Amino acid sequence: MIILVALVAAIVFLVIFNIWIKSKKTGNKSMNDFSKKIREGSKTFLKIEHNVLWILILGISLIILLFSYAFAITFFFGALLSLVIGRVGMDVATKANVLTVVASKKSVHSGMKIAYLSGLRVSIFAMFFGLIAIIILQSLFGDPKILYGFAFGASLVALFMRVGGGIFTKSADLSADLTGKIEKGLPEDSPKNPAVIADLVGDNVGDVAGMSSDLFESYVASIIATMVLLSALGMNIFVPLTLAAIGIISCLVSILVVQQKRIYSVLDSLLVAGIFILGLSYLFLNSFFMPILYGLVGGVLIGFSVFYFTSIKFAPTKRIAKAAESGAALNVLAGLSNGLLSTIVPVIVISLVMVLSYYFLGLLGIAISAVSMLSITGVVLASTIFGSITDNAAGIAELSGSKKAKINSSKLDSLGNTTAAIGKGFTISSAALTVLTLLASFIVIAEINVIDILQIENMAALFIGGFIPFLFSSLVIGAVGRTSSKIVANVRSQFKSGKLDYNAPIEIATKNSIREMLISVLIVIVLVFAVGSLLGSAVLGSLIAGAVVSAFLLSIFMANAGGSLDNAKKLIEETRYGSVVHKASVVGDGVGDSLKDAAGPALNILIKLIAIISLLFVLLM
Amino acid sequence: MIILVALVAAIVFLVIFNIWIKSKKTGNKSMNDFSKKIREGSKTFLKIEHNVLWILILGISLIILLFSYAFAITFFFGALLSLVIGRVGMDVATKANVLTVVASKKSVHSGMKIAYLSGLRVSIFAMFFGLIAIIILQSLFGDPKILYGFAFGASLVALFMRVGGGIFTKSADLSADLTGKIEKGLPEDSPKNPAVIADLVGDNVGDVAGMSSDLFESYVASIIATMVLLSALGMNIFVPLTLAAIGIISCLVSILVVQQKRIYSVLDSLLVAGIFILGLSYLFLNSFFMPILYGLVGGVLIGFSVFYFTSIKFAPTKRIAKAAESGAALNVLAGLSNGLLSTIVPVIVISLVMVLSYYFLGLLGIAISAVSMLSITGVVLASTIFGSITDNAAGIAELSGSKKAKINSSKLDSLGNTTAAIGKGFTISSAALTVLTLLASFIVIAEINVIDILQIENMAALFIGGFIPFLFSSLVIGAVGRTSSKIVANVRSQFKSGKLDYNAPIEIATKNSIREMLISVLIVIVLVFAVGSLLGSAVLGSLIAGAVVSAFLLSIFMANAGGSLDNAKKLIEETRYGSVVHKASVVGDGVGDSLKDAAGPALNILIKLIAIISLLFVLLM
Repeated sequence: MIILVALVAAIVFLVIFNIWIKSKKTGNKSMNDFSKKIREGSKTFLKIEHNVLWILILGISLIILLFSYAFAITFFFGALLSLVIGRVGMDVATKANVLTVVASKKSVHSGMKIAYLSGLRVSIFAMFFGLIAIIILQSLFGDPKILYGFAFGASLVALFMRVGGGIFTKSADLSADLTGKIEKGLPEDSPKNPAVIADLVGDNVGDVAGMSSDLFESYVASIIATMVLLSALGMNIFVPLTLAAIGIISCLVSILVVQQKRIYSVLDSLLVAGIFILGLSYLFLNSFFMPILYGLVGGVLIGFSVFYFTSIKFAPTKRIAKAAESGAALNVLAGLSNGLLSTIVPVIVISLVMVLSYYFLGLLGIAISAVSMLSITGVVLASTIFGSITDNAAGIAELSGSKKAKINSSKLDSLGNTTAAIGKGFTISSAALTVLTLLASFIVIAEINVIDILQIENMAALFIGGFIPFLFSSLVIGAVGRTSSKIVANVRSQFKSGKLDYNAPIEIATKNSIREMLISVLIVIVLVFAVGSLLGSAVLGSLIAGAVVSAFLLSIFMANAGGSLDNAKKLIEETRYGSVVHKASVVGDGVGDSLKDAAGPALNILIKLIAIISLLFVLLM
Repeated sequence: MIILVALVAAIVFLVIFNIWIKSKKTGNKSMNDFSKKIREGSKTFLKIEHNVLWILILGISLIILLFSYAFAITFFFGALLSLVIGRVGMDVATKANVLTVVASKKSVHSGMKIAYLSGLRVSIFAMFFGLIAIIILQSLFGDPKILYGFAFGASLVALFMRVGGGIFTKSADLSADLTGKIEKGLPEDSPKNPAVIADLVGDNVGDVAGMSSDLFESYVASIIATMVLLSALGMNIFVPLTLAAIGIISCLVSILVVQQKRIYSVLDSLLVAGIFILGLSYLFLNSFFMPILYGLVGGVLIGFSVFYFTSIKFAPTKRIAKAAESGAALNVLAGLSNGLLSTIVPVIVISLVMVLSYYFLGLLGIAISAVSMLSITGVVLASTIFGSITDNAAGIAELSGSKKAKINSSKLDSLGNTTAAIGKGFTISSAALTVLTLLASFIVIAEINVIDILQIENMAALFIGGFIPFLFSSLVIGAVGRTSSKIVANVRSQFKSGKLDYNAPIEIATKNSIREMLISVLIVIVLVFAVGSLLGSAVLGSLIAGAVVSAFLLSIFMANAGGSLDNAKKLIEETRYGSVVHKASVVGDGVGDSLKDAAGPALNILIKLIAIISLLFVLLM
């Protein structure tokens, strides 16, 4: 019943939003020109990306077909839906950016509403179709285990969108900063910088398409894994779906916050949606209330801790900005040190959520806490897309030279940065819980009772598992560096020749990121398959454990080191733009950006993919 | 018998060396002046360090006395011997530096001989007294378990010497580079740079005193752990002592390499000593030959891989130097990416050594392979100290303005850098094997049969264990940053006032590093004790496993990222000193240095300390 209510509510919201957004005024010619360039750049990326992905998806579908037609079908639909969500997200976001600029001319609040509701439009769309697809596929096949094909499809596309997108966005951003800001002393988003459109496209590619497919995957994977556990225990498999439905309703309630408050605060939205989820769960899912509480409170606590470690309001980021006064090296070191330290809250919270949920309901408790943490996805994803839209809006305002819009868009942009950082912390933690849930499902399906690390193969697998995220980070960071070098060379030659070509950097970034990504992904898949098929499922379980611990710590370290270095730069920009200290902080930001937007997020997806491939391995072999 | 031969050989070498080194000519007044300044600076550091340590050692001895007088005694002697070795190392190295300068005026080969043999003098001294102490204490107490007190003492002092030394050396180095090289454009080791003496002192503090106590600790801990395993199995506990004795003899044989070859090559020495160890082991320890082979070959392979990933001769470091052309951020990213990737060989080698040794002899096999890897310590430590002496020699030649000596000393210096990097890779791998050996001993003593990571407490402990190295790295890197900022401020004010005071930076570095180190160490010890006493020994075992996997990967990443960034800078310096590209690479070196010389090595000691404290916890509680 509550599922039905949620689905209807989602449809009503989507319809009303579409009517409302069409009523909004569009920008002047200059704004629309730049917005159009961003849209076209985004489409270029998606087109090339989709060409490669379709070949891969069809190929893998055929391979799975050799083992099971059901898995092949669910895999295909998982991949398809993930692609659609990424595309819709890009579409909504690249339309909303110029509307946000125009609305911010009137007031910050009007701009904010457009940016947040557009984000919510994407996240509700994703949650709605995720829920529908799971219900339909479950009623078709009658066994939740088959739905792991769906999760695998979503996972594979997410890996490509997020990692490829991450490489694209960071190499574009880095090159724009290096050439424009440092070498030529141009301001951020200057129209004289040939890489500036690629940079703005990158925000949509990485944070909208990539993030949507990332969270979508965690969302469906944790729901499916919980259904598998419930079905093995002979319990009602609709529990996680009900919880997800409660999540959709509660996230819609967060609209009220945006209506009421003048300045958008992601923490307020999280709190309101969270309290609603708890209230409704208490009424409708009373016997699962404790793990739901743990998961949700855990998620919000981790969000707060990320806020503390990366916001310019608090000591850590201020210290990093201060360190820039002694040069770029100390700035980078301060950021790395802060990132390493920032793992403290997430690691303690995840350990507690894990242990407490387990004591309450066993492995099922952990699964429920994961779904609970993800039930708030709507707000998190909306906030991240909010960040991307406002970033684009500030860019368009700057490019088209509109003063009033520029000031208000900048205010929105700096709000957006913090929300994006909180989104990242949340994504990583939910990914870790999702992987533990998948691991729980894995040991149930593979009928493993013990993974004893005193068995030497398991100990070795811990080392190898721990190593995979290091390898993957290296490949992704290396890819950003290599792609940036190529864009930098192109931009420099443009500066020399005096001709301005916004498109060249976009094409370089797209082609290189896709090639680099294909290599990275293939290496990792082959590695996992080799270990899995040679050494069996207990060793595979140990490998997953090693990978999840290592990826969890590394990705939080990278996300927060990057987030705080980025914001330290912003803090310095406020008063000392163009100074030596500012230049030092741009170096720090350049290092941090690749860590936080490319390597860090890539690890979430990596561990989920490893876990899901391992599951398929057990199910199909 | 072979133990006796080794001890006699060691004494003969030490006596002959002392006579030989006294016959060497000392330098002119200017050289001796600078050498004296370095000696005095080193002594300042050791004096303050020892004052703090004595209070701590006596305090802990008294606490242990409450539980067991035997452990208190062995603890005290372990700490004492480690202090003595650090002091002797500093003494030998700070005397050898000026002798090396004078000898290099004649030829590179003469300088090289003095530097290497002085290093060997320290390492043979450490191995000799380690062996003697273990034999005496074992015959006094009759139970190798009691000797864990000895290992704990060595471990605690090593932590202080290595971490405090690391913070000292890197903050001095970083400040000297930042102020002198970047801001003032002075060459390396310019006498006009007030932080230059602190930088040269730092090489002795970190690489001589710190490294000696680090390897000494691995050496005695792995021998003792193997004795405990042998005694539990009712086998001859003198096996690891015999292997260590074979190691001493074989390391002395490496002198022949230095006599014969014009240019010192650490790989040649390792190969010669390694082949000798294998030959003698085949004769005298035939039934343990396979694990000895695995450990030794593994150690040498890891050494080679470090060489590949950090030497200017190969692609990785060349790529990093190339990346510096696109700015400091891409330079740092290329270094980080390279460091992350470089974990690949060590992780595969350690996994294989572990599994193969286990199949041959069970847990004992792993222990024997650890002792085998460490039997070559003499060459590794000598090579590292060689690096430190030649670095100092180049500094003194530059400071005193002697042309011929300067050219030859520089050649030695660049040789020394590679040997130091190989030493680091080796130290980390041997530390990982030592910890696994300690873990093996731990599970035997605590009578644990299974550590099942599907038990939720154990899974949580994996996360917490994996987190500890992140926390510790953060504290150490943060300490380097904070200390550097203070030195930079001091040097800048010296530049302003025009007065030159070499001593102020040394005092700032010493006091700050000791304070930072005390805090770091206390936090970690309390954390481990809290988890250990609240949750019991299986959980503690899981915690150690999480910590060793995480520390192993992180420290290799940091060591090689730093090593390659450092050498990339050197490569650029060869042809483009003072250029924009060079300045970018100095930023990369500044980041890399703290990773490779402070945080990375600190993690080795950290995990050994965690393992030994856990062992004492089981033995005493």
